[in-house]
Amino acid sequence: MNDIVSPTAQDLRDARNEVGRDEEHNLIASNKVEGTAVYRPDGEKIGRIHHLMVGKTTGQVEYAIMSFGGFLGMGKELRPVPWEALDYDPEMGGYIVSAEEDTLRNSPYLREDIEPTWDRAYGMHVFGYWGVPY
Amino acid sequence: MNDIVSPTAQDLRDARNEVGRDEEHNLIASNKVEGTAVYRPDGEKIGRIHHLMVGKTTGQVEYAIMSFGGFLGMGKELRPVPWEALDYDPEMGGYIVSAEEDTLRNSPYLREDIEPTWDRAYGMHVFGYWGVPY
Repeated sequence: MNDIVSPTAQDLRDARNEVGRDEEHNLIASNKVEGTAVYRPDGEKIGRIHHLMVGKTTGQVEYAIMSFGGFLGMGKELRPVPWEALDYDPEMGGYIVSAEEDTLRNSPYLREDIEPTWDRAYGMHVFGYWGVPY
Repeated sequence: MNDIVSPTAQDLRDARNEVGRDEEHNLIASNKVEGTAVYRPDGEKIGRIHHLMVGKTTGQVEYAIMSFGGFLGMGKELRPVPWEALDYDPEMGGYIVSAEEDTLRNSPYLREDIEPTWDRAYGMHVFGYWGVPY
C-alpha cells in the first residue's frame, strides 16, 4: 500500500475523475448514450436509455427515455425519467436510478400512438412523480 | 458552458424564460437531433448534426458534432461546434450557424483514428476557435 510507484496514466485519470472537475467535462456521445445500461444502487441492471429529450435551444437534457425491457414485468414501454433522477456511475459505466420497485413499476410511460406534448403540465406530472423539482 | 457546476432548477427556468414561453419546453429527441439540418443565416444549408456530446453528469450538451458534407469543399470530416454557436430556428426546423466561410472551412475537425480527450484544454481550443467562452 505504501509502495512508492509512479502513477499510471489510468491512475491519473482516476484521480482527475475523483476531483470532479474533469468529470464535469466527461462527455458521452448522444448516439452512445442511446443503449447505455441503467442500474439500481445494488448493481442490478434494470434497463437501458433509449434516447434523450433535449431542450432545442438550451441543449439541456430534460428526460432520459428508458426501456425497462421486462424488469419487474414492466414490458417494453418507453418511460420518461427526469435526467436529475439518474446518477452517472463511472465504475459501472452506466446510470443509477434509486427508486423502489413500485415507483419503477408505476412510473409514467409513453403511449405508442400519442407523442406527449412535453409541456409544463407534462413535465410537472413526470418530474413530480419522480420527486424531482420541475 | 461556463459553469463548472450542474445548472440549478432556477438556471434552467432562467434559460427557458430567455427563449420564450412557447419555446421553453420545446424538446427534441436525441435520435432526431442526429440528422437535423444546419443552415447559415441566409438559409443556405451547410450540413447536418451527426451527434451531440453531452455531459455525462450534467446532461448539458457541450458540442454538436457536425458534418458539413462537402460544403465549401470541406469533406466529410466531423467537426465539433460549441452548442452555443448554434441557434435553433423554429421556422427552419433546424439550427443556424453564423460564421464566415473561412471560419467554417478552417474549423477544428475530428480525426478518424483518434478520439479527442474532450478535456478542458480541448474545450478551450474548440470553444476559443468559435469565439464562445468555455
